[in-house]
Amino acid sequence: MNPEPFLQLDRVIHEKGRLAIMSMLAATPELSFTELRDALGMTDGNLTTHIRTLQEAGYVSVAKSYQNNRPLTTCSLTAAGRKAFADHINLLEQIVRQIKPE
Amino acid sequence: MNPEPFLQLDRVIHEKGRLAIMSMLAATPELSFTELRDALGMTDGNLTTHIRTLQEAGYVSVAKSYQNNRPLTTCSLTAAGRKAFADHINLLEQIVRQIKPE
Repeated sequence: MNPEPFLQLDRVIHEKGRLAIMSMLAATPELSFTELRDALGMTDGNLTTHIRTLQEAGYVSVAKSYQNNRPLTTCSLTAAGRKAFADHINLLEQIVRQIKPE
Repeated sequence: MNPEPFLQLDRVIHEKGRLAIMSMLAATPELSFTELRDALGMTDGNLTTHIRTLQEAGYVSVAKSYQNNRPLTTCSLTAAGRKAFADHINLLEQIVRQIKPE
């Protein structure tokens, strides 16, 4: 077994909650905090913490605005986030193929 | 995107160090502590902690014996560990396929 792809996995993205958030955001230009929270069944606190970690890594950007006089928080992947996510999925694919070669 | 496979990921196996350990052990009947440590470039302390976590989850069994008068620690997957690992790899495969459908 080649351990290299395991070693290269980025812990910021690998954690399962953040992997789900990144996957949701990779499929769309942006999502509101509420959409992400409801789709993933996360608590506000949990999602806030994960988004902050992804923001600090430079993978997600957060925009605050208003919609119908109510605050709206939207999240999207940065260019670095898209690149890191694509790399991560390629590593997971290599890992799966090593273990299930068929 | 279907969040279900993300939610089902087992945190005990998903952590990248433990995913690498489980993958090594899945490929062989057993490995010594030293073989695992050297193959994965882990410190003794790090590997010990991960093995203990996997043992407590019932996924890895540890046997202590002697070889040439020196203590030998060998690790192997339990039946539950093999099942949980196979399930985990199937989930990762589903995740990769969702994101890279081709």
